[in-house]
Amino acid sequence: MQYIDINCDMGEAFGNYAMPNDELLMQYITSANIACGFHAGDAEVMQRTVALALKHGVAIGAHPGLPDLQGFGRRNMAINACEAYQLTLYQVGALYGFVKAAGAKLHHVKPHGALYNMAAKDAGLSLAIAQAVKDMDASLILYGLAGSEMITAAKQIGLATASEVFADRTYQSDGSLTPRSQPNALIGNEEDAIAQVLMMVKQQQVVAVSGEAVTLKADTLCIHGDGAHAVDFAKTINQRLKNEGIILQAPVSA
Amino acid sequence: MQYIDINCDMGEAFGNYAMPNDELLMQYITSANIACGFHAGDAEVMQRTVALALKHGVAIGAHPGLPDLQGFGRRNMAINACEAYQLTLYQVGALYGFVKAAGAKLHHVKPHGALYNMAAKDAGLSLAIAQAVKDMDASLILYGLAGSEMITAAKQIGLATASEVFADRTYQSDGSLTPRSQPNALIGNEEDAIAQVLMMVKQQQVVAVSGEAVTLKADTLCIHGDGAHAVDFAKTINQRLKNEGIILQAPVSA
Amino acid sequence: MQYIDINCDMGEAFGNYAMPNDELLMQYITSANIACGFHAGDAEVMQRTVALALKHGVAIGAHPGLPDLQGFGRRNMAINACEAYQLTLYQVGALYGFVKAAGAKLHHVKPHGALYNMAAKDAGLSLAIAQAVKDMDASLILYGLAGSEMITAAKQIGLATASEVFADRTYQSDGSLTPRSQPNALIGNEEDAIAQVLMMVKQQQVVAVSGEAVTLKADTLCIHGDGAHAVDFAKTINQRLKNEGIILQAPVSA
Amino acid sequence: MQYIDINCDMGEAFGNYAMPNDELLMQYITSANIACGFHAGDAEVMQRTVALALKHGVAIGAHPGLPDLQGFGRRNMAINACEAYQLTLYQVGALYGFVKAAGAKLHHVKPHGALYNMAAKDAGLSLAIAQAVKDMDASLILYGLAGSEMITAAKQIGLATASEVFADRTYQSDGSLTPRSQPNALIGNEEDAIAQVLMMVKQQQVVAVSGEAVTLKADTLCIHGDGAHAVDFAKTINQRLKNEGIILQAPVSA
Repeated sequence: MQYIDINCDMGEAFGNYAMPNDELLMQYITSANIACGFHAGDAEVMQRTVALALKHGVAIGAHPGLPDLQGFGRRNMAINACEAYQLTLYQVGALYGFVKAAGAKLHHVKPHGALYNMAAKDAGLSLAIAQAVKDMDASLILYGLAGSEMITAAKQIGLATASEVFADRTYQSDGSLTPRSQPNALIGNEEDAIAQVLMMVKQQQVVAVSGEAVTLKADTLCIHGDGAHAVDFAKTINQRLKNEGIILQAPVSA
Repeated sequence: MQYIDINCDMGEAFGNYAMPNDELLMQYITSANIACGFHAGDAEVMQRTVALALKHGVAIGAHPGLPDLQGFGRRNMAINACEAYQLTLYQVGALYGFVKAAGAKLHHVKPHGALYNMAAKDAGLSLAIAQAVKDMDASLILYGLAGSEMITAAKQIGLATASEVFADRTYQSDGSLTPRSQPNALIGNEEDAIAQVLMMVKQQQVVAVSGEAVTLKADTLCIHGDGAHAVDFAKTINQRLKNEGIILQAPVSA
Repeated sequence: MQYIDINCDMGEAFGNYAMPNDELLMQYITSANIACGFHAGDAEVMQRTVALALKHGVAIGAHPGLPDLQGFGRRNMAINACEAYQLTLYQVGALYGFVKAAGAKLHHVKPHGALYNMAAKDAGLSLAIAQAVKDMDASLILYGLAGSEMITAAKQIGLATASEVFADRTYQSDGSLTPRSQPNALIGNEEDAIAQVLMMVKQQQVVAVSGEAVTLKADTLCIHGDGAHAVDFAKTINQRLKNEGIILQAPVSA
Repeated sequence: MQYIDINCDMGEAFGNYAMPNDELLMQYITSANIACGFHAGDAEVMQRTVALALKHGVAIGAHPGLPDLQGFGRRNMAINACEAYQLTLYQVGALYGFVKAAGAKLHHVKPHGALYNMAAKDAGLSLAIAQAVKDMDASLILYGLAGSEMITAAKQIGLATASEVFADRTYQSDGSLTPRSQPNALIGNEEDAIAQVLMMVKQQQVVAVSGEAVTLKADTLCIHGDGAHAVDFAKTINQRLKNEGIILQAPVSA
């Protein structure tokens, strides 16, 4: 049997600003990364999104980001390891409260945007983030880019991990994502994206932009919740994976 | 044997802005209300202040406030009960993370400033705050103004309470604080403040501005951490209470 | 000849959160109230919205709000007159920069949400806001609820005013808006709303909920930019007013 | 005759957090860089600090920073040139309002912290900042690190500049500041700092850490307002410069 988790960033509304796809997407995913108020989300959105995930049986994760609401946590900031530890713990704790109040259990943590990308290449930041997650609750799973420093750091301290792959991003021959600054970074064609996903899930391999096949661990597939076709794509990829006999479920902490 | 808790608001620094008295005050108090980032405090300050409280054996409480950093949480805001629930749970959760990471246990919650004052007179807000505290952890103690709606609400849902009294504020004949807008709201003379404290702790009474003695429950005494004489007063009141044979300790959840 | 200004709140996007109607609405209005970053808007949105207004020949106003991004400036806050002065001046100045940089001229100021509503009934707040506007630029026009303290305060210090009326709100016999807490506060039927607007503009009268005709000064008509039918309604009211021979233009400072 | 301006960052209080040295320092400086609410400062502090500068005849500058209150604008953020333009214009405009309301004239702009340091080495950011300043008011003076990209960019678009030097920082042989990460970055000895200042002002030269004399334009001297000895040092350097017959005054726009 083959398994894959489908995760999506959720609860990225804020105050008066809605994210109308959240409810529709929940039915097609198996884990939700819920924003914690720094790059998006607020206490009301968090409470509501936790309830929505529970209603759909979706595993709940915290999605901490940099303190940059205007930049949606997408602008790199020169934070040190202490600050990474602190802002992760703060945000994970905040979501932990809503999950606990709902009688549920927090399942995972996935850093957001620039925090995710900076940590992927920085062992110090990754270790700080992993430690914060472990200090909060040692049974949590850290979601990180497959092959990144985040996965290494989590393993190093005995924290469970989920290696994340992307449907709509191309990969380089070293297994890293093609930077968005390059023209071939994104997979625009839906069938190509689906084919890449199926290969990653079934063979744990991806065809790099150079043409060679690269081995890649694929525990969880990230799909995007924004954009006009997000819900349609979520529905399609969910169905296509099921059609292949792949079981969709959130990873289980060892 | 008579007991009293001495509590003080702590961790109200923010970023580059220090609160230099915190370390000095810790030695004279038995419980610390640690700001959670909305009216003051940030993730770094929270981590540091939790460590400081543990070092001094001081019970740790969350001190959630209104989302008004510029106004230090002192300006009333028209929030509804849902919002009160959500902002309390968010902030208590955030501090909970730091306490849990430090291997300690969160002891109490005391709302801050305008949130505290609005809730004192508003049963709906009080119930929402108390419910958030209970949903976070049913063994927490809610600190609230003696005789206020907050105490009533907590009792109503079976949450432990600590009735709070003030050293430097005068009381009215109905047991409420004299509003700060009135000239006799504050007790400027230190000996008068100490005398009021001793009477409240030993006799559970206070002499109102009208001259009559009023019964008042006194589980915890609030002292202020800012101002030039804050540390001196903390030291003095701590010593004077001990001299009277009163045991200084944080309240214990039933 | 009869004249009316059609104003709409614009530039209330923030960071990643779009307000897609802005461009469509610009063609049907004659003055835009641009958010200044406290309740909504940010520096990027402000620059873009100023350019959009200029492109459509729409008069540009500053739309200062309370410092409450999560609450979209709709929650009352207990600010004093000094604070009202300061937060108005700060925000008007910030927008002034973008207008000046675009080679244009700031035309008016309209406070937002709770700030608008609180000031409408509070002479002290109104005077502070009006003074801030005048201190920024004495040729600016203050938009305020017809018959409110804001209009009175502006006149008192010699600042030009525009009395604002609403298409979709009902009025009470004293000329004030029916509070939103009452069931008949809103006019749901489009034709009723249009009829009310035409009466207000052509006869400077409105039929109150009590049934009596009330005199009302109508210099500027507020339409709402959010909601599914906002653009359609803007187009319709614009056309219907023109059909009646009414000239749509922004008020001119004396 | 020789001239030098002494500038200091002012108005970096926020809400409840005071910066008590501001008033004392004003008597020893000739230009004040007033924080604009992003890295520090708020509308109340801005109004108060503008009044303080006017009272002491000190030239008023805007001191825009990155949107990072917790990090005091000292953490690099990956902003692009558009964002640099926008955040500069927003903040300069906001202060402009307070200066105009006080019947005074804004004199200069000096970016703060990480924005200053990033721009010093980045022609694109510098050009964006300089353009924002010029678009606000072409008679403003841009303060920037002597020899930096900021000075180059301002000259390129015809904006007046003031080349800034530091009393307590050492220089490298290329005229740049020794990075703070190096042990000899700071001049701890007061007499050494004063000697460096006198040499910079009188000879437009500095002795680099390598021992060689380097030519350096010195229009304005930055002194720091925080720290225990800030006021004493301000007084001393003010007196020592006067003793040498050097005229202390703010630069004049061409």
